[in-house]
Amino acid sequence: MNVVNHRFDIVDKATFRNGMSRLGSAVSVVTTRHGGKRYGFTASAVCSVSDTPATLLVCINRASSCFHAFENTRHFCVNTLMPGQEDISDLFGGRTLSADRFALGDWREGLTGAPVLANASVSFECELTNAIDEATHRILVGRVIDVRENEEQATLLYCMRRYLIG
Amino acid sequence: MNVVNHRFDIVDKATFRNGMSRLGSAVSVVTTRHGGKRYGFTASAVCSVSDTPATLLVCINRASSCFHAFENTRHFCVNTLMPGQEDISDLFGGRTLSADRFALGDWREGLTGAPVLANASVSFECELTNAIDEATHRILVGRVIDVRENEEQATLLYCMRRYLIG
Repeated sequence: MNVVNHRFDIVDKATFRNGMSRLGSAVSVVTTRHGGKRYGFTASAVCSVSDTPATLLVCINRASSCFHAFENTRHFCVNTLMPGQEDISDLFGGRTLSADRFALGDWREGLTGAPVLANASVSFECELTNAIDEATHRILVGRVIDVRENEEQATLLYCMRRYLIG
Repeated sequence: MNVVNHRFDIVDKATFRNGMSRLGSAVSVVTTRHGGKRYGFTASAVCSVSDTPATLLVCINRASSCFHAFENTRHFCVNTLMPGQEDISDLFGGRTLSADRFALGDWREGLTGAPVLANASVSFECELTNAIDEATHRILVGRVIDVRENEEQATLLYCMRRYLIG
């Protein structure tokens, strides 16, 4: 379903980004393996879709340096970070080459081959079931095939352009 | 794109929900007007999609009591709550009839007619541009046509099944 006629003007980028900075969220590193290599990026645009069957979604910028890997993989892993892992968030959210991003953190191989952060708050390993392009981004929909939780009850959050402990 | 053959088992509902409780998020009340009536529900599954053009998404359960309104509307508003508005979150997340939910809070009419919470942390009024069914839910994609921010810098967050201040 696509609505063609717009009755209203769309807000500008700065207004939208300022407003969005208030929509706090957990900080996750989304990873995959493609062609024998590991790829990952920091994401706040992750959310639950359904629990029957267990389904989540992630938005990825189609212009991002690791998009080609996510475009061609059937599996990915959402690693939601713990407080204290701000450095991992910054590394996967910056301009560091994909190969060098996994230098920080204890990364293991998941059921699907996707990189799983051993001491994440929670990791959701997923099988891709749908992909929808919207504006500059692609919405990746995944069925969750494995969940690993940290024993410690905490999550790294980001709101108002600062980290906080959830 | 739909993947037909699954190599792995999907995790059960309880495992998924426990894991998801760690994926903290802002608390929003998503509203619309349909047939002259106001509808709304509490949502944590809201995220940014693109800033060019300003686009966000919301997931709604197709079995929810207000789904028929969101199925038939072209506009909706995401009202991200402030700390102190836990009662509004609980009311719109409970079993109260749609008509009675707007008893709490100072609700105004937005550009599109959708209810806008006057003292929300931020409100994003949207024009629906796409709707994708995934499992039990529908993903509503909207272009953002108006953003209203509270002067106070704060947001109501929910993580580990408890409210916190962002």
